[in-house]
Amino acid sequence: MSETEEPSYERKVLYGNKYFEVVSCTWKKGDHSPLHSHHFSQCYTLVEDGIFENLTDSGFKREIQTFEKDQIFITPPAANHSIRCISLSGQTLHVYVPKIAESPRSNRFKPISAETLRETLDISLSNEGVRWEQLLLSLKNIENHSVNTDTPFFMNQLFSGVLPEMLASEDVIARARTTMATFESSPAFSLVEAEVVKELVQLIGWEKGEGIGVPGGSAANFMAIHCARHRKFPEFKTKGMGAQKMNLFLSEEAHYSFKKGCAALGLGTDALITVKCDSKGRMNLDDLQIKIQQCLAKGSIPLMVAATAGTTVYGAFDPIEELAKICHQHSIWLHVDGAWGGPALFSNSARALLRGIEKADSFTFDAHKLLGANLTCSFFLTSDTRVLLEANDVSGADYLFHNNGGAIDRGRMSWQCGRRADALSFWTLWKSQGREGIGEFIDRLLEVQKQTVQWIQKQDRLELKASPDFLNICVAVTPPKGLALQEDWSIQVRTRLRENNQVMVNYSKDSNGLPFLRLVLANPRITFETIRQILEWALEVDSGS
Amino acid sequence: MSETEEPSYERKVLYGNKYFEVVSCTWKKGDHSPLHSHHFSQCYTLVEDGIFENLTDSGFKREIQTFEKDQIFITPPAANHSIRCISLSGQTLHVYVPKIAESPRSNRFKPISAETLRETLDISLSNEGVRWEQLLLSLKNIENHSVNTDTPFFMNQLFSGVLPEMLASEDVIARARTTMATFESSPAFSLVEAEVVKELVQLIGWEKGEGIGVPGGSAANFMAIHCARHRKFPEFKTKGMGAQKMNLFLSEEAHYSFKKGCAALGLGTDALITVKCDSKGRMNLDDLQIKIQQCLAKGSIPLMVAATAGTTVYGAFDPIEELAKICHQHSIWLHVDGAWGGPALFSNSARALLRGIEKADSFTFDAHKLLGANLTCSFFLTSDTRVLLEANDVSGADYLFHNNGGAIDRGRMSWQCGRRADALSFWTLWKSQGREGIGEFIDRLLEVQKQTVQWIQKQDRLELKASPDFLNICVAVTPPKGLALQEDWSIQVRTRLRENNQVMVNYSKDSNGLPFLRLVLANPRITFETIRQILEWALEVDSGS
Repeated sequence: MSETEEPSYERKVLYGNKYFEVVSCTWKKGDHSPLHSHHFSQCYTLVEDGIFENLTDSGFKREIQTFEKDQIFITPPAANHSIRCISLSGQTLHVYVPKIAESPRSNRFKPISAETLRETLDISLSNEGVRWEQLLLSLKNIENHSVNTDTPFFMNQLFSGVLPEMLASEDVIARARTTMATFESSPAFSLVEAEVVKELVQLIGWEKGEGIGVPGGSAANFMAIHCARHRKFPEFKTKGMGAQKMNLFLSEEAHYSFKKGCAALGLGTDALITVKCDSKGRMNLDDLQIKIQQCLAKGSIPLMVAATAGTTVYGAFDPIEELAKICHQHSIWLHVDGAWGGPALFSNSARALLRGIEKADSFTFDAHKLLGANLTCSFFLTSDTRVLLEANDVSGADYLFHNNGGAIDRGRMSWQCGRRADALSFWTLWKSQGREGIGEFIDRLLEVQKQTVQWIQKQDRLELKASPDFLNICVAVTPPKGLALQEDWSIQVRTRLRENNQVMVNYSKDSNGLPFLRLVLANPRITFETIRQILEWALEVDSGS
Repeated sequence: MSETEEPSYERKVLYGNKYFEVVSCTWKKGDHSPLHSHHFSQCYTLVEDGIFENLTDSGFKREIQTFEKDQIFITPPAANHSIRCISLSGQTLHVYVPKIAESPRSNRFKPISAETLRETLDISLSNEGVRWEQLLLSLKNIENHSVNTDTPFFMNQLFSGVLPEMLASEDVIARARTTMATFESSPAFSLVEAEVVKELVQLIGWEKGEGIGVPGGSAANFMAIHCARHRKFPEFKTKGMGAQKMNLFLSEEAHYSFKKGCAALGLGTDALITVKCDSKGRMNLDDLQIKIQQCLAKGSIPLMVAATAGTTVYGAFDPIEELAKICHQHSIWLHVDGAWGGPALFSNSARALLRGIEKADSFTFDAHKLLGANLTCSFFLTSDTRVLLEANDVSGADYLFHNNGGAIDRGRMSWQCGRRADALSFWTLWKSQGREGIGEFIDRLLEVQKQTVQWIQKQDRLELKASPDFLNICVAVTPPKGLALQEDWSIQVRTRLRENNQVMVNYSKDSNGLPFLRLVLANPRITFETIRQILEWALEVDSGS
């Protein structure tokens, strides 16, 4: 598709309106369409005559296939594609549902107040229903007033991009509408989840392991606390916690879900002991040792070290290998929260960040952040093959779990009864890309990170807040010359970028309370040019909001 | 559509293959199509000439609309419809994607072993990816080997049916792919969830209230325990539980999630005190009073009564009004698990089952069971407007919750960080049917229940296990004359019905260990004829499996 001549194929709309379009195209050899997006339209192409090459770009990967007379190809929603005629002449028929132009969303980041939005959308519920058309209109309105998370310019969260594989899996999950509680109600999905767990366990490097799909990384961290406690105090399951105090150790940069978990699980947030970090945001081992000693000296039990693989703000990785040694010494459960950085498992280069992971007792893995699965698609994994079942199985559900056959009812290990088959979403992405494809995707983003860091270092008004190991780039922006120094300038820049519908990027603050932007590389369509564009826009902001 | 004459319109396929079909139809006055299903196909109809009436049957409700030249109507996936020409002549163009015949699934209930299924499906994950077409084939295979939960003959769980409104909302949620954590990342969805919560609080009859979407009814019950404990012992949030014992009271028929919750939240399963039930499966008030006294006598704190509105097996409703009096007397938190029976709120007749609900402290409400929302779509609701935030908000998430503007970031009240916009699914159903439409749907199913009960009472070989108040009909089947009495006959019948791909219905056992079938009326397409058919099949089973 490298030629630059104008596309010269003839395009004729046979039937067209805003709901669908049937298009006939006449081609000569070498004619090709540009690489274009069908957004969320369904698009079917029938080769009526000739031979064509079709390139599909899913974001993660590109595929080229040849099609001949009477063959049909589908361009999945959210994919880009390009067609080239390789026979002397050709004829194609295309059906678009809906018409492509009706499908895209605006690049919507501009803030809107709850009051204005409430007036704009028809959100009220009442006694009477509405007609189907009005309902679809309301839904479309809601969709159009949602943040566009599809574009690479959305980097406000640790996820970005809407991938064709994800949409395809969502369709199957939605139509199947079943629960993961039992094998008999979810035979295929139960196998799918078991396969994902098995392969993740193998990637981690555990000899054996078990795992369960959970509703998000926070839930996985909750489950880690629960399992660690159960192994140390199995009698708590029936008798409840006593007066015995216990402590969990995590870094200053660890996720807040451990606090929520300790509050919910009855340990109390005081059980959490915060360990200092180095300049990159990694847990300081000396400080950890001191704090474990302090815990022991008080007669408290050191229950768990909750390491982070990829912190939320800096993307830092705690030194797992070294933590495992310390934990082993004191019989402490080592949990690794890999909600963000866990996918480094797939990358030959980034995997070093997880050195020692095979010595951890448990692992939080989110497929809905970096890997583009549906939100949420998370797993709690542990090398202890018994603890999930022992800690969570209860009697009193005989109406549901009939113990028939050899197949395991996965609901026994879960806190949920009705549970969505979200594992299929990650399975679909993995099946599509393969382990290597996922690894290459991560390596590609890491390359963008390196280029970005080099570029930032050359800019006077950009200050890198930490030397990144992963896919977060924390950078402070200073005001242009001529403007007074304003401490919150990075926040003002962030606001302006949103108001201009340019970028949605989040910010955080350093230990001195000074704000900075957190660029997140997660969208598979991100290139260095995307990032440079964002930072150039940031530098162009010339007055506060 | 009452006429019986043969449809006489002319139907011509303009383009057709297994992926799409473009059809042209020529009509005369009075011509009409039968009421037919498009399964999960997208179907668009353009009126090229004439005037047509279109009837859409979503399962929940029927809509008739008139369309003229150049107007288009959509028949949503999972809906039935019928077209009638009301002008002298007419012409229509139809696009089906995919072709309807490619869309339906088999009536799949027949059990399959994990081994056989593993051999049938291409589930393995590996280093290399697969091409898009192979991926779609694998997904289709997985879908085809999933249980068909769409048909009224699926009544194995407390949900049944795939509704067009649900599929439409799933599309929006999937494409928007965002998290409910903050208003800025989910402005429209945050308002949608707040609206659902507000309207549910009003339906319950609380003056004020708060609520949050949770991943299933079990999670809502977990949250109830957490909130009750927090209000009684707010210091536990930081300090953790001490040696003080506390008890929760629930009926023998209550859901097993309370056991999982007590184990997870640090109370221990021994904290649960089981209260006897009457013959209908309702909590016995005298036994409750005795057990509260026993708890107090031991120096334990009576923390919560967990009433059930619609038990899993019998569909029984505990007497909330009377329980509220007892709870008030002892300052006990009254939680009502309405995961199954909560929708009775919407029905003018069934609402009486919830008498006193406005005196409860909290409520579990699942929209994915009886009301057909996506799985899972659940809410925890409480009349205490402060407790959710107080019990769950923690510091350490400043990178996420920026406190900007007046809009609430709903993630503060949640255990989840990334959270799917599932509330939209229930919102869509409510918007479509209105409160009255939902109420009429429930009343319609209750009418089917009454007819069924009368019919069962006339059958020699069917024994009603309890006189039902709601939509569960528990019925034991005895073997045909000539066969020896077999205690597990109902289970054998259940197995045979599955093997024949006729019905998937669950069973349970009574207090003597004798099994019975649990018919569940949840699918909006259920009629008395459905149930009679099922029971006639059950009676036809003539030998064990």
